[in-house]
Amino acid sequence: MRISTLAEISGVPVPTIKFYIRAGLLAAGRPTARNQAEYGEEHVTRLRLIRILTGPGRLSLAAVQRILEALDSTGMVPGERCRATIWALFPDASDERGAGVDRARVIVDDFVDRLGWSVDADSPGRSALTQVLAALHRLGIACDAEVFRPYAEAAERMIAAEPVRLPAPTAEAAVARTVLLGVAFESMRLLASEHRMLNDPPAAKPQAAKAS
Amino acid sequence: MRISTLAEISGVPVPTIKFYIRAGLLAAGRPTARNQAEYGEEHVTRLRLIRILTGPGRLSLAAVQRILEALDSTGMVPGERCRATIWALFPDASDERGAGVDRARVIVDDFVDRLGWSVDADSPGRSALTQVLAALHRLGIACDAEVFRPYAEAAERMIAAEPVRLPAPTAEAAVARTVLLGVAFESMRLLASEHRMLNDPPAAKPQAAKAS
Repeated sequence: MRISTLAEISGVPVPTIKFYIRAGLLAAGRPTARNQAEYGEEHVTRLRLIRILTGPGRLSLAAVQRILEALDSTGMVPGERCRATIWALFPDASDERGAGVDRARVIVDDFVDRLGWSVDADSPGRSALTQVLAALHRLGIACDAEVFRPYAEAAERMIAAEPVRLPAPTAEAAVARTVLLGVAFESMRLLASEHRMLNDPPAAKPQAAKAS
Repeated sequence: MRISTLAEISGVPVPTIKFYIRAGLLAAGRPTARNQAEYGEEHVTRLRLIRILTGPGRLSLAAVQRILEALDSTGMVPGERCRATIWALFPDASDERGAGVDRARVIVDDFVDRLGWSVDADSPGRSALTQVLAALHRLGIACDAEVFRPYAEAAERMIAAEPVRLPAPTAEAAVARTVLLGVAFESMRLLASEHRMLNDPPAAKPQAAKAS
């Protein structure tokens, strides 16, 4: 199909398609003539994935690019490719170091060991968690990694339930699903936050006695 | 204190401080002479919050700006301010409409009703969830909003447990805590994903019989 047809089918304007090709997110079409190229179903699929990741998935173009690279890497066995895709969701943590961060890293590594999770020593999740713990400490919030245990248990349950309930037909759909479910959970957390705050505000003032 | 002292105490370089002031994220100092201004403790606190939100909090400057505006709005009662801060975490959803999105919105609203959560009809979480559900449908993943119920329950438990375990000393710390715990959960979800994928890969091939 021509680029105008691709735009029509995918709902993505031609200039945006050209931008995605220049940015390396989408493969160029097969040249058929000067200034003309042929596009296929794989372009439709890829465009749909990009639109979902940057739209409801709320990812930056840089993150999308890392995910697509992982998805396309042919030199990897499936397990490696899955891991690379997950890793791509989390950008490299800042290189911030210092006594506080180093100590937080030890605490986080120990916590992951206690969970019995076998994840790579370089997993970006470890660094992100380390930065979070160090930042909480800097804010004067005293806690150790055990404060994350309910999160770990909730995450395990969610991950275990996902594939059964939501089979994804393709590798692209599986990636999109992972991203979308992350957004869904974050939405839930904010809605629950709002509900709780409006209906059960922090006990700043003593409750007024009610006639009963 | 002078800007050079502020930079030293906060660890934020002078040009970055000036950029934050120009961007409206940080109040200007009190002018004391031509090309000189006085900064106070409130600048240190605010800089620390900005660094946490853009660093481990992984927020864009635009999101940080929305959060700080909500935090600073003096015309609001505390409940409204809390809600505005939560809302600021989620940018306005895209205006994408269409039969699929409209139907997803009805499903999501009905689901939130069934949860018994009283949240505003305009809560950004509703729109985000709607976009997620519509995108899952476009991917060919058939599901209704009930698929999010474990998320809702996990979110409720997490929100209920937070303040008890992690008292935040200031409004700034409370905002940072909310953002950081979101990142912590997302890290947990990715680590759990990695653990599961490497140790319990999708059953693509029948399991080899093991001598036992």
